[in-house]
Amino acid sequence: MTLTQLKQRSLLGLKALSKEEIESILDRAAYWEDHPVKVHQAMQGKFAANMFFENSTRTRFSFEVAEKRLGAEVLNFSAAVSSVQKGESIYDTVRTLESMGIDVGIIRLKPIGVLAELATKIKVPLINAGDGNNEHPTQALLDLYTMRKHFGQLKGLSVSIVGDVLHSRVARSNLWALRKFGANVSFCTPPNMQAPELDASYISMDEALKADVVMMLRVQLERHESGMLSSAENYREQYGLTVQRAAKLAEHAIIMHPAPINRNVEIDDELVEHPQSRIFPQMENGVPVRMAVIERALN
Amino acid sequence: MTLTQLKQRSLLGLKALSKEEIESILDRAAYWEDHPVKVHQAMQGKFAANMFFENSTRTRFSFEVAEKRLGAEVLNFSAAVSSVQKGESIYDTVRTLESMGIDVGIIRLKPIGVLAELATKIKVPLINAGDGNNEHPTQALLDLYTMRKHFGQLKGLSVSIVGDVLHSRVARSNLWALRKFGANVSFCTPPNMQAPELDASYISMDEALKADVVMMLRVQLERHESGMLSSAENYREQYGLTVQRAAKLAEHAIIMHPAPINRNVEIDDELVEHPQSRIFPQMENGVPVRMAVIERALN
Amino acid sequence: MTLTQLKQRSLLGLKALSKEEIESILDRAAYWEDHPVKVHQAMQGKFAANMFFENSTRTRFSFEVAEKRLGAEVLNFSAAVSSVQKGESIYDTVRTLESMGIDVGIIRLKPIGVLAELATKIKVPLINAGDGNNEHPTQALLDLYTMRKHFGQLKGLSVSIVGDVLHSRVARSNLWALRKFGANVSFCTPPNMQAPELDASYISMDEALKADVVMMLRVQLERHESGMLSSAENYREQYGLTVQRAAKLAEHAIIMHPAPINRNVEIDDELVEHPQSRIFPQMENGVPVRMAVIERALN
Repeated sequence: MTLTQLKQRSLLGLKALSKEEIESILDRAAYWEDHPVKVHQAMQGKFAANMFFENSTRTRFSFEVAEKRLGAEVLNFSAAVSSVQKGESIYDTVRTLESMGIDVGIIRLKPIGVLAELATKIKVPLINAGDGNNEHPTQALLDLYTMRKHFGQLKGLSVSIVGDVLHSRVARSNLWALRKFGANVSFCTPPNMQAPELDASYISMDEALKADVVMMLRVQLERHESGMLSSAENYREQYGLTVQRAAKLAEHAIIMHPAPINRNVEIDDELVEHPQSRIFPQMENGVPVRMAVIERALN
Repeated sequence: MTLTQLKQRSLLGLKALSKEEIESILDRAAYWEDHPVKVHQAMQGKFAANMFFENSTRTRFSFEVAEKRLGAEVLNFSAAVSSVQKGESIYDTVRTLESMGIDVGIIRLKPIGVLAELATKIKVPLINAGDGNNEHPTQALLDLYTMRKHFGQLKGLSVSIVGDVLHSRVARSNLWALRKFGANVSFCTPPNMQAPELDASYISMDEALKADVVMMLRVQLERHESGMLSSAENYREQYGLTVQRAAKLAEHAIIMHPAPINRNVEIDDELVEHPQSRIFPQMENGVPVRMAVIERALN
Repeated sequence: MTLTQLKQRSLLGLKALSKEEIESILDRAAYWEDHPVKVHQAMQGKFAANMFFENSTRTRFSFEVAEKRLGAEVLNFSAAVSSVQKGESIYDTVRTLESMGIDVGIIRLKPIGVLAELATKIKVPLINAGDGNNEHPTQALLDLYTMRKHFGQLKGLSVSIVGDVLHSRVARSNLWALRKFGANVSFCTPPNMQAPELDASYISMDEALKADVVMMLRVQLERHESGMLSSAENYREQYGLTVQRAAKLAEHAIIMHPAPINRNVEIDDELVEHPQSRIFPQMENGVPVRMAVIERALN
């Protein structure tokens, strides 16, 4: 197998993936969802390393469950409890685990551009579990999976993404992937949270509520300490999905959120498990989606 | 299976359990203790999540060994290395892991009343691994198991529990469980560490030493920074099991402690592995007891 | 089996091991390296506990991969996230895990003399994964393995160890083991980093470069905050393996480093994956070497 072929098994982002490739991942996820046996042999005798240079509960556990359901041996690296403190570079850590014989590496990191560079140097397939402000492909895949499951298809769907688009890798991966399927993505963001490099339409909160899918982003208030949106209450009033606003949603519309949630900031507490919310089903869908992505990396 | 039946497989405390239910757990633990093969198939293909929102070494590893001996896949969540820091609520974390398909959740937490509330909202069985000042049922079960193993039965046993009863979930679970079996429990505590809501007899240190079982509690000196018991030395003099005091124990009596131990505070260093001490055997017994509890949760 | 026999399965250091015993470990490592199947049954149903009272990424993962390749169940204890903070002693932690039924314990710790004392009290075999300034036997074994693999044999090899010998357990284990095989070990260190208790020859940097093996040690600049070697740049100039110096190495010579690396301090960035460097192959070799050591502990 050539290095190029190996690289094709990596998943660094959705921007560069074809509609067909995405579709085949979603189909394979449906296969795994339909298979009730919990632990399979697909990765028996193989090692997956979760290398999280940025904290995460949800995404790390979702990958860990997916790997274990595939029968893999799992190694968990988390920067906070490890030698990155000793000044070791991200590259050295990934290269070290590669030397020890891992078969696939799952990576989350903050610094921009590092993942792309790693992928040119590391031979084992790498799966992006969150790359700075760039992409978060498995989150977007599970989002697409969740939408497809509810609406039957993605073509023609209107999707509003509300919140801090500027810093959101979830927004970027969703935008790029959804457009391949002919969905219409609009952003609704505070003026200082727009991403000017993305060619997208920005709409008002009232407009955003008319979509088939209203996807709320986590707002990281610590990033916006000053200015008029600095308080949670202010944010909620202007851009939060409140109970009052949710009442305006179409009956068939669904509410999504990549989590973790700031309850009563970007979304009201009562809406998290509302019948139209897909927030916990999104997490449920994350496992078969990631199984499909990992399986693809190893084939 | 109804939700009520599912709930009956949870283990939130011993207060609400019948003597027969407790006995059947202890009997099943004896079965596991007698089975020398280390890893079984009972939980093959099932996932256990250890969710520790309060630090623990001993209890977490005891559960992990029990789960792995049952053949389960294990997920370890520890608040200190995870997104609880990002303001995520305990509920959201537990609900997240539930969404990912765990079969049983082991929970330790500090805030009072949260576990009881969780149990009304979460569908998978939950096992209490330490709930604030309320209960620590698996610790008490392994204590009962250890006593039964030594004395043959619990009926008529006199048990002194010495130390900070006020803050002790171990004392509460033992009190409630032991009384169901006709054992006589007395407390010996500093005046400011009594638990007035517990209907129990308080005795002197001299009296406490006459019991069949002398169970020392860990004193958390950081909780009692001021006052006459503030120093370790003072505590030891008044309520510690010193070598001198241990010499007064009946020959058949045993020393217990839930650990971790403050050596030379509540118990002298020389007594920890004294022939009459059951401290490390208690830890040994914890594994089969927890196997029985987890197995019960999944049946 | 007697306690003495049990002890002989521990690996506390190489100083006390015979040449034949070391050779048999290296041979068995070669067996594991030659076996492409990743997960074996050798330790099926057995528990290994990695107890790291000092931070480590590389060594801990290397052991974890080795244990999982042998089919073991693995428990990871790391002091930083655990109850050592509650004042629990190292002994109590190890004894606790022993009580829970582990079959082998891997230990890394800082305080001098504690491991030797533990080994007299704990019944399960213990493997030293880094013991203060004393020994780091599995690192030296993988170093010997790497040298033997490259040169065919160790007899007659000249090995220069460059850096902070005073604080290096890697230097000590390598010195003691290599001499048993008739290799010639020399140290090249800053004056304040010599280890006077070791009967070894000290050579200049120019001399050191003439060896068959040039092993660079990690310098811990935080240990040498004052004085003329306090800056990374100063250290590099005087004792670093720079590109310029590496050009003087014999063609057949190899560069080694136990890692983690301070790039551009003790070794130039460009040399880490230089054709003559064995740094990542050392990590690769660590896995089969540790498999052999663990297997020996369990036989």
